[in-house]
Amino acid sequence: MSRHLYACPLRWSDMDAFGHVNNVVFLRYLEEARIDFTFTTAGEVGEKAFSEGSVVARHEIDYLKPLVYRPEPIMIETWLTRLGHASFTVSYEVKDAETLYVRASTVVVPYDLAAARPRRLTAGERAFLAEYLEAVPVAA
Amino acid sequence: MSRHLYACPLRWSDMDAFGHVNNVVFLRYLEEARIDFTFTTAGEVGEKAFSEGSVVARHEIDYLKPLVYRPEPIMIETWLTRLGHASFTVSYEVKDAETLYVRASTVVVPYDLAAARPRRLTAGERAFLAEYLEAVPVAA
Amino acid sequence: MSRHLYACPLRWSDMDAFGHVNNVVFLRYLEEARIDFTFTTAGEVGEKAFSEGSVVARHEIDYLKPLVYRPEPIMIETWLTRLGHASFTVSYEVKDAETLYVRASTVVVPYDLAAARPRRLTAGERAFLAEYLEAVPVAA
Amino acid sequence: MSRHLYACPLRWSDMDAFGHVNNVVFLRYLEEARIDFTFTTAGEVGEKAFSEGSVVARHEIDYLKPLVYRPEPIMIETWLTRLGHASFTVSYEVKDAETLYVRASTVVVPYDLAAARPRRLTAGERAFLAEYLEAVPVAA
Repeated sequence: MSRHLYACPLRWSDMDAFGHVNNVVFLRYLEEARIDFTFTTAGEVGEKAFSEGSVVARHEIDYLKPLVYRPEPIMIETWLTRLGHASFTVSYEVKDAETLYVRASTVVVPYDLAAARPRRLTAGERAFLAEYLEAVPVAA
Repeated sequence: MSRHLYACPLRWSDMDAFGHVNNVVFLRYLEEARIDFTFTTAGEVGEKAFSEGSVVARHEIDYLKPLVYRPEPIMIETWLTRLGHASFTVSYEVKDAETLYVRASTVVVPYDLAAARPRRLTAGERAFLAEYLEAVPVAA
Repeated sequence: MSRHLYACPLRWSDMDAFGHVNNVVFLRYLEEARIDFTFTTAGEVGEKAFSEGSVVARHEIDYLKPLVYRPEPIMIETWLTRLGHASFTVSYEVKDAETLYVRASTVVVPYDLAAARPRRLTAGERAFLAEYLEAVPVAA
Repeated sequence: MSRHLYACPLRWSDMDAFGHVNNVVFLRYLEEARIDFTFTTAGEVGEKAFSEGSVVARHEIDYLKPLVYRPEPIMIETWLTRLGHASFTVSYEVKDAETLYVRASTVVVPYDLAAARPRRLTAGERAFLAEYLEAVPVAA
């Protein structure tokens, strides 16, 4: 059992006119963490299909502390809280050494772009994802 | 009792490399609907303080159908499902005549930017918001 | 001879932490004006190929006045200052009734996405574009 | 005489529906390089005022090769090609070991946000910037 770690670089323009990283931009950070997890890390072990199509079915996100731009990246920990046959749920914490900024979760659905419809997870994908699962799997 | 309607213009760049409006961008559309509701519409009846500071505490969002760029705007209906003393919850439907694309809700907290902390809703703000409330109010 | 007019909606998030519409976002506005011109307007007279692939080879942009978010759109006037055989240059003014905010120009190259290379303009495309040309054409 | 180097991280969402990093996003990359140069690097030698206000007066940008998302950053070299008394021009190359993607330049104007007007460069700022100057200075 392990968690995926992603050091997420900020951009100055992630701040809005109120001088904080905009709430919408945190969803962008979560996307980058998922890309690093399901495209790059999964691709390194031979599971490349997520990068050819996957869609988000649902997000839940709680904002705990405001964040201001700085050159240092923030850390995003990602793990699975559900592993179904046609979808899975990733959970995240966005933080640095002192502060937890955001808790969130996303339901991801593998998608066949050519056929324009959801598809089931392959056995290889499930084996890759299962290593990050921290809760009892529930069928989708 | 009424709902706030916002005709939200799309941008071609809202689509990602998969050729659909990116999931994160829908949160941007919701922000625009909230700005139109709590900055512009509230401002027209004399309640200007939201535009001087308000933060998002939580989002929930369900993606029902994919959306592709087109010149015509999409409609966003916004109403309240909770009205507390220091926060309120808005719910949304993003749709056009044929299709419901997204359902979502957001917990909004009025914020004093100068003092850098949340503040309570004023009586005037609560009166403005109460007209859009479709559920029993619960204290925050 | 005519100019293409586009009423460009702003988004509150177009502002940066300095409280003005960010300089990069004006390029996004220009893109929207070009999309409206070369995808939508050209598509209405049967020229649909620009929307299947076109790339930007160069921008020049001068910022004359700062712009702050408001609900009203800004106007973008677009016309051609050069019409070549494999590229053309559009010029723009971003303004409202009182103020000229930005002057810019862009070199656009029609692009064959499948073949991954530039292509020449068709006779139909040149006829469409020629109506907006305000300067002597120069071969690309 | 030296050049400022910035390793610019890409985001998957920087690509548009044509599957390349969108032309507008390169201006965002240039902004990040300038922030790193004029906010972070200048700040480390005690020149903090750029981060309290500076505006872009002009961009020129040439797109030489298309770029597709990858986890590795691209390199941005930044140096000065003009150092005036109230503005300066930075030039950039966006590249990796094999490819030069973009050449660009930007006229930057220090700005007093509180007074809402341009200001002159201080002696300290000019000394910092002069180390990066590769052409004969011309008064603004």
